[in-house]
Amino acid sequence: MVKVMMYGCNGYMGHVICNLIKDMENVTVAAGIDPCPGDQKDFPVFTSLDACDVDVDVIIDFSAAVAVDGVLDYAAAKKIPLVECTTGLSEEQLAHLEEASKQTAVLRSANMSLGVNTLLEMVKTAAKILGEAGFDIDIVEKHHRRKLDAPSGTALAFADSINEAADGKYNYVFDRSERRMPRPADEIGISAVRGGTIVGEHEIIFAGTDEVIEFKHTAYSRAVFGKGAVEAAVYLADKPAGLYDMQDVIAAK
Amino acid sequence: MVKVMMYGCNGYMGHVICNLIKDMENVTVAAGIDPCPGDQKDFPVFTSLDACDVDVDVIIDFSAAVAVDGVLDYAAAKKIPLVECTTGLSEEQLAHLEEASKQTAVLRSANMSLGVNTLLEMVKTAAKILGEAGFDIDIVEKHHRRKLDAPSGTALAFADSINEAADGKYNYVFDRSERRMPRPADEIGISAVRGGTIVGEHEIIFAGTDEVIEFKHTAYSRAVFGKGAVEAAVYLADKPAGLYDMQDVIAAK
Amino acid sequence: MVKVMMYGCNGYMGHVICNLIKDMENVTVAAGIDPCPGDQKDFPVFTSLDACDVDVDVIIDFSAAVAVDGVLDYAAAKKIPLVECTTGLSEEQLAHLEEASKQTAVLRSANMSLGVNTLLEMVKTAAKILGEAGFDIDIVEKHHRRKLDAPSGTALAFADSINEAADGKYNYVFDRSERRMPRPADEIGISAVRGGTIVGEHEIIFAGTDEVIEFKHTAYSRAVFGKGAVEAAVYLADKPAGLYDMQDVIAAK
Amino acid sequence: MVKVMMYGCNGYMGHVICNLIKDMENVTVAAGIDPCPGDQKDFPVFTSLDACDVDVDVIIDFSAAVAVDGVLDYAAAKKIPLVECTTGLSEEQLAHLEEASKQTAVLRSANMSLGVNTLLEMVKTAAKILGEAGFDIDIVEKHHRRKLDAPSGTALAFADSINEAADGKYNYVFDRSERRMPRPADEIGISAVRGGTIVGEHEIIFAGTDEVIEFKHTAYSRAVFGKGAVEAAVYLADKPAGLYDMQDVIAAK
Repeated sequence: MVKVMMYGCNGYMGHVICNLIKDMENVTVAAGIDPCPGDQKDFPVFTSLDACDVDVDVIIDFSAAVAVDGVLDYAAAKKIPLVECTTGLSEEQLAHLEEASKQTAVLRSANMSLGVNTLLEMVKTAAKILGEAGFDIDIVEKHHRRKLDAPSGTALAFADSINEAADGKYNYVFDRSERRMPRPADEIGISAVRGGTIVGEHEIIFAGTDEVIEFKHTAYSRAVFGKGAVEAAVYLADKPAGLYDMQDVIAAK
Repeated sequence: MVKVMMYGCNGYMGHVICNLIKDMENVTVAAGIDPCPGDQKDFPVFTSLDACDVDVDVIIDFSAAVAVDGVLDYAAAKKIPLVECTTGLSEEQLAHLEEASKQTAVLRSANMSLGVNTLLEMVKTAAKILGEAGFDIDIVEKHHRRKLDAPSGTALAFADSINEAADGKYNYVFDRSERRMPRPADEIGISAVRGGTIVGEHEIIFAGTDEVIEFKHTAYSRAVFGKGAVEAAVYLADKPAGLYDMQDVIAAK
Repeated sequence: MVKVMMYGCNGYMGHVICNLIKDMENVTVAAGIDPCPGDQKDFPVFTSLDACDVDVDVIIDFSAAVAVDGVLDYAAAKKIPLVECTTGLSEEQLAHLEEASKQTAVLRSANMSLGVNTLLEMVKTAAKILGEAGFDIDIVEKHHRRKLDAPSGTALAFADSINEAADGKYNYVFDRSERRMPRPADEIGISAVRGGTIVGEHEIIFAGTDEVIEFKHTAYSRAVFGKGAVEAAVYLADKPAGLYDMQDVIAAK
Repeated sequence: MVKVMMYGCNGYMGHVICNLIKDMENVTVAAGIDPCPGDQKDFPVFTSLDACDVDVDVIIDFSAAVAVDGVLDYAAAKKIPLVECTTGLSEEQLAHLEEASKQTAVLRSANMSLGVNTLLEMVKTAAKILGEAGFDIDIVEKHHRRKLDAPSGTALAFADSINEAADGKYNYVFDRSERRMPRPADEIGISAVRGGTIVGEHEIIFAGTDEVIEFKHTAYSRAVFGKGAVEAAVYLADKPAGLYDMQDVIAAK
């Protein structure tokens, strides 16, 4: 039974993760940390790391960037593996994280979703088999109207993952309207749909002779990052010091 | 019972149309015209219009641009309604067609597919109800790797149809990668996927607050134009002289 | 400017609706009612209807079944139009609602989503045009693993809407595994996918000769019911006494 | 350069395969066999195996069941690897095929599509990672109105492939309308849509907490079996005697 410390247990993602763990048999929340008050929990909650006297196997941190340095120092000193899910870390904090990973196992990923990371791995296989058999590859992603950048970082990660499996033979193209020519075999078209409040959808298309294979990931809320965090915690609990990411979790399955 | 003359009965689309009509009760092929030889038919086939002595209610022409002038003259002289499906007409031929439409009913459309034309009409309703309620509108189209232009003419026809219903308030955008800003409400993004041998797919997306409505048309072969041609013939058989298009056929349903 | 009274303003849907209205120009929340405490609002909030002294043009009720009778009496006595969104009403309450609709305009719908109701109307047009042209119609719906019934009430509503436009010619079939025969033309197959936390997805498929048209609605959260409620309120504000539903709102657009 | 003998080179699939090979660099058609006449080819065509005097590395047979025994004897006697794509083989012929595979490499698969076979392999990975992480698995397949059986053999093959990776823990359910209960974790729902002329679509859905991963295969014509046959021929050309299937081809990539 893996004992988790949930840092940020009273926040939105803290709730999501604690609820996910309730339905699982091989993992439990042994302690929560949150400076902000929250509703009644079925595990002890402390307002700071210092106040916590519970033994845990792994820490999940889904708090705010400002708290990350404290968590890193704590994990390194106590040699407790740490799943670091907080976003918006500074260059200094990323360096701090790497430093801490020399003392204990630290896992961090651009996207914590189990589904996205599974697909990131699987499209490599598809690229090898179908790409080499002459299938054309295109990506369509859809996000809400407030998203500033296009295409999404995750769409680019999919393209990079495919390209890695294909020895970098693909160029990316974001606009075909200005040219008049057949589609080159060595390009990946990436299209960005924007509208409403769409949380995030990624479709990777392999189009061959009279057949099309599509891999599609749809996120319905930020809660998708929770499942990945829990899987990462179970994976990381008994790992030696070092830097890990979600691809390691997927590869171990 | 509508009696059809099938001009180009031995070509690919002639076959498709004659087979479709076989399964229908209110329409029959009374005569076929084709200078090229073909297999045995269950209706008389003539090598030219002059040779034909069968009375018909309407002509479907799915032959080659070179034959169109003869068909137009014949239809105008005999005052037989004509569904003109041949593509690649010259400016002169389009003028000829308009002239002929003063003598008899002539129907011509950029896209003869019943499905596409039905959707072209329906997205206007959606644009009025959902567009005005703040839904964002985007279009994704997919075609084979040999298609030279992007986006497709049909995708632009969908955008124009929506724009017509919205008093022209929408701009079209084909590339969002070069900017960094929230999506404006008055734009329609049009994305073009290219790959393999995809015949043609159009998806019109209305994205609102936590709900998305999609209208999607998938063509599996050029045969989709046949169904529209037959419906057009049944519609046109008893119509007075004038110029018609597929939207008239849809509106009459 | 339509002045809305939001009954249940501190609940989840109350929040959703007040936020939607903030972004609109022709409607405002003039008063909120909620016996439960909530955060600071930019309109006066009262703990009961009796305490409220603000003039409003229409009431949106998204509270609990237990409060509905009080709201109905208040709306009827003051002759204020009422959008009744609360679910789980008893037979007695439905009779009470009908009684109240003799005094003032009352609107109630099985599904308040603007998107679903727009599609419910549009599939009738599609059924007339495409159904009569020989397209086969099937429905696939997807919901979360906890949903007890299958197919969903909304999927059946789509089938009924299509059937109404087709003079009731369709039978519904939920399982094709036990038979061995071609698909009859007069049936609508309805398939129910269950899994995860899918909020609700409905896909209405019209399959013809080498072309397929799909209408798809995806809900990302219960918030979709909010947009419909606001549109209904704007519509209902100046309507005479009577019973209304979302189809009236759509038809007026 | 792999030299292929195309048995049935004048049939529909023979055409498809010869066209595919024209665009490839590592494989060529060295000879064709067909008792029926066809148009001019850029390789020698013989009306029977006996008449053929060309050396080949591998045979692709896409003819008729009646010809299969002759092809099997020829391949076994000459020890030429054989990709046997003909369907509708009798029990005796399957035994004959197994016998022949003791003399030379023989490959046969229920479905020759490269895309379907790639996905059949990949869903095993997904089942291991996502299935064990608590994702629910459902399958939706769509076929034309003339298909007699439901669900499709390929849909069942997908379910079996998933089940094999999960130690057989899944039951299959084809109808949820007769029960009223939450979805059990150990079931795979398989839904069959029927309509129009849909060639074949398979969607495998993994639904988790607020995320859904979909794997989708769409066939546009029978030509999809051609690509798989060519890949199989290239794979098989230098293999020792034995029985092979498309999964071996995929695994070798």
